[in-house]
Amino acid sequence: MAELAAHVGGEVLGDGARPIHGVRTLEEAGPEQLSFYGNPRYRRAFEASRAGAVLVPPGTPPREGTSLVVVPLPHLAFARLSQLFHPAPRHTPGVSPRAHVHPGALVHPGATVMSGATVERGARVGNRSVLHPGVYLGEEAAVGEDCVLYPNVTVREHCTLGDRVILHSGCVVGADGFGFAFDPEGPAHVKVPQAGTVRIEDDVEIGACSCVDRATVGETVVGRGTKIDNLVQVAHNVRVGPLSIVCAQAGISGSAEIGTGVVLAGQVGVVGHIRVGDLAKVGAQSGVAHDVEDGAVVSGSPAVAHKEWLRNSAALGGLADLVREVRALRRRVEMLEKEGTP
Amino acid sequence: MAELAAHVGGEVLGDGARPIHGVRTLEEAGPEQLSFYGNPRYRRAFEASRAGAVLVPPGTPPREGTSLVVVPLPHLAFARLSQLFHPAPRHTPGVSPRAHVHPGALVHPGATVMSGATVERGARVGNRSVLHPGVYLGEEAAVGEDCVLYPNVTVREHCTLGDRVILHSGCVVGADGFGFAFDPEGPAHVKVPQAGTVRIEDDVEIGACSCVDRATVGETVVGRGTKIDNLVQVAHNVRVGPLSIVCAQAGISGSAEIGTGVVLAGQVGVVGHIRVGDLAKVGAQSGVAHDVEDGAVVSGSPAVAHKEWLRNSAALGGLADLVREVRALRRRVEMLEKEGTP
Amino acid sequence: MAELAAHVGGEVLGDGARPIHGVRTLEEAGPEQLSFYGNPRYRRAFEASRAGAVLVPPGTPPREGTSLVVVPLPHLAFARLSQLFHPAPRHTPGVSPRAHVHPGALVHPGATVMSGATVERGARVGNRSVLHPGVYLGEEAAVGEDCVLYPNVTVREHCTLGDRVILHSGCVVGADGFGFAFDPEGPAHVKVPQAGTVRIEDDVEIGACSCVDRATVGETVVGRGTKIDNLVQVAHNVRVGPLSIVCAQAGISGSAEIGTGVVLAGQVGVVGHIRVGDLAKVGAQSGVAHDVEDGAVVSGSPAVAHKEWLRNSAALGGLADLVREVRALRRRVEMLEKEGTP
Repeated sequence: MAELAAHVGGEVLGDGARPIHGVRTLEEAGPEQLSFYGNPRYRRAFEASRAGAVLVPPGTPPREGTSLVVVPLPHLAFARLSQLFHPAPRHTPGVSPRAHVHPGALVHPGATVMSGATVERGARVGNRSVLHPGVYLGEEAAVGEDCVLYPNVTVREHCTLGDRVILHSGCVVGADGFGFAFDPEGPAHVKVPQAGTVRIEDDVEIGACSCVDRATVGETVVGRGTKIDNLVQVAHNVRVGPLSIVCAQAGISGSAEIGTGVVLAGQVGVVGHIRVGDLAKVGAQSGVAHDVEDGAVVSGSPAVAHKEWLRNSAALGGLADLVREVRALRRRVEMLEKEGTP
Repeated sequence: MAELAAHVGGEVLGDGARPIHGVRTLEEAGPEQLSFYGNPRYRRAFEASRAGAVLVPPGTPPREGTSLVVVPLPHLAFARLSQLFHPAPRHTPGVSPRAHVHPGALVHPGATVMSGATVERGARVGNRSVLHPGVYLGEEAAVGEDCVLYPNVTVREHCTLGDRVILHSGCVVGADGFGFAFDPEGPAHVKVPQAGTVRIEDDVEIGACSCVDRATVGETVVGRGTKIDNLVQVAHNVRVGPLSIVCAQAGISGSAEIGTGVVLAGQVGVVGHIRVGDLAKVGAQSGVAHDVEDGAVVSGSPAVAHKEWLRNSAALGGLADLVREVRALRRRVEMLEKEGTP
Repeated sequence: MAELAAHVGGEVLGDGARPIHGVRTLEEAGPEQLSFYGNPRYRRAFEASRAGAVLVPPGTPPREGTSLVVVPLPHLAFARLSQLFHPAPRHTPGVSPRAHVHPGALVHPGATVMSGATVERGARVGNRSVLHPGVYLGEEAAVGEDCVLYPNVTVREHCTLGDRVILHSGCVVGADGFGFAFDPEGPAHVKVPQAGTVRIEDDVEIGACSCVDRATVGETVVGRGTKIDNLVQVAHNVRVGPLSIVCAQAGISGSAEIGTGVVLAGQVGVVGHIRVGDLAKVGAQSGVAHDVEDGAVVSGSPAVAHKEWLRNSAALGGLADLVREVRALRRRVEMLEKEGTP
């Protein structure tokens, strides 16, 4: 236990010799497991927990029978210790004889390409990266080092991934953007070639069945360290800044720019050609139709300042009452008007 | 026809000897086909139908030229008869020489593993289950009996499916949940290992491109007999109770609990760590931000009681008028105030 | 440059001999590249552009240093010229020895079936069509001429594609529709067999991870020239008319009918069994719960006429103020009432 505490620079309150063999939630942890308590909202779970050790913030009083490990950020320390207990699986390097690798592809000898994966002409795969079965890597596409492409991921031609990128199953990088010009004489929607690419920077993770479309010309970019959840749509020529969080089923329309450290909650929609500023937060199911300033918190469809949305939502809840109130007032005013008439 | 009626325990009104060779909608059925009429909303289609036989509820008057089969639940009887006319296709058991099956996998001799499917070490496939091309079954994952995994389905390591489970193409079971802890000194979003699994119980069906993420620790669970439509997101540690219905593009956030027999309509969002009670119904596009009681019917974003939502929606439609009304009242009050002044 | 202008029937203002080697946006184009300017909204980008040539609408004044090509529809002309610069890649015809093609399939000798693609018994693939790795084409399914099925596309049994159809990666055509009948005695949701098919007509393009479900009986249809973006749900028995546009993450419920030339913006939901009329436009995130007339423009959830939605949205923004106003009025009326009392 003492080494675990040392690993995250924590101070132990209580028994530092206790054997710890895993991490769990406060509810599930037993005497040989470690958990974390970072949010007062979960105080009851903390108090009821049977965990042998708990990561806690400074100021937490010591506790009978539980070793506390005091750290400034318990959730972060938990993430690091959980990584110790769950190291990434190691894969034997090499190309499966049942993979489909073009002789003109460049696969690092330290990389793993499994059966049923495809690597096209001119594509590159970096050291220690893993392509699971059913992965497709198009011509001249590039995967950096230490990447994981889970089964049935598609990365189309010329798109590039940095290092330590994780793409979950069903994720599609580089499908054509949605661009057409209407020909009234066809009539027909004429395809605008989507001749650009996608650049996924280092440390990005993209969820299952999420789509990042290639640019019309130029690049669609997902910046360093940004994390994207499942079933998210990132349209052509979008630029998502570094360190942003995009939750499940959100959609970002063409040429929109998402700043640094932005949070888009679940099912959010962002229209095209606007900018969501650095550190902005957008509430679940919101529809962002205009630029959002740096640091702003917005909600609703169309999205407005979160405080205003709360006020409007509350007022909306009382709207039927308000209608009745106005009707009653009108009657009283009519009475007064009649009285006033001599 | 008489055997069909007997199969569903129905009583025939009219010709019981009529030959019936298929099932169709009321609009499409001809004299040798059977349809059903269960909802008075479709009375006109029923009256105009050329169907040779129609499943109807008790109390339906007999009809010239059409054999009626009286059953308590016409739609249910239709489902059973349609199953007679459309039996599940039989696949030759065995592992294709072009499948990628690890020698340490356990495939029942009665199962079918098609070309291009992958079964990893320690994975198990039960009797009569079918893995179509492009299916991926990870290490130690388990598929019960009589399951169908359509082309390009992914089931990641250690996840388990019960019996008679159907997963449609592009469905992903067991991708990592979306969990990160922010390290302000990186700055970086540090991955919280998603070390849990997914358990899909018996008789569950999950639609195309739907995602059920593995738990952080413990299990994400989809309960017995629940049916999930396409493009649905089920986040880590969610528990969906038995016999629920989740319509297309709905999303359920982490650790939410969906009860028994719940209906989530299309594009619904449910926030994390809340409970939607047994038999609750949530209207399309609603955003559920708080616990929903057993049996409640809610709508709107944020969701409120359906009746209240209807009232507020109606009031919202008249809001511009209300604004005008209040402005007029203010003028009248001003007039009265002036008059009152001596 | 003169040939480019001739190709789109444009008139050159300025130097017609300038060499042009590519197309770009106004921002990115340099002296040897062509761009377009069709919308006054981008006038500043046009004025600042370093492009050697720009497609412009009639009436645009000539410009020093830039060759203008006057055409009635600059965006359309740009699409056609971009197609010249980015011709579709040619693939060597033939079936890869590492594809899984059933001997009873009919693959045209001019078609390309790549490694890891599957073509089942009785399926047909037309001349010049390309099936990328991981594509699945089910029994008796048919692909017309000049189609492109990108990696990991699934087309289930008996579904048909016309000519020049493009399906992007992860797209699923013909998964079972979502149909169940509840059996209270199980209790269980009993599957209604989805025995119909999907028909995708000529010149349709469908985005990554979009799903078009097979009909319960009969057909689900996507009409000629319609373009569907990523992550879209098209349920069983839907009929989408020709030349419509369905943006990302929209969902169309069972048996709905979408007319000709309709536009559904992103994240729209359409309930089942209704009709959206020809040339109707539905705003982003709207929920369409009733028939929409031909040519109507609707927004909101539930959707109303767009103008009404704008008015209500504006009024909603002032709702908190309105509540205050009514409260103030009530006090003034109370005062007046007291005064009136002798």
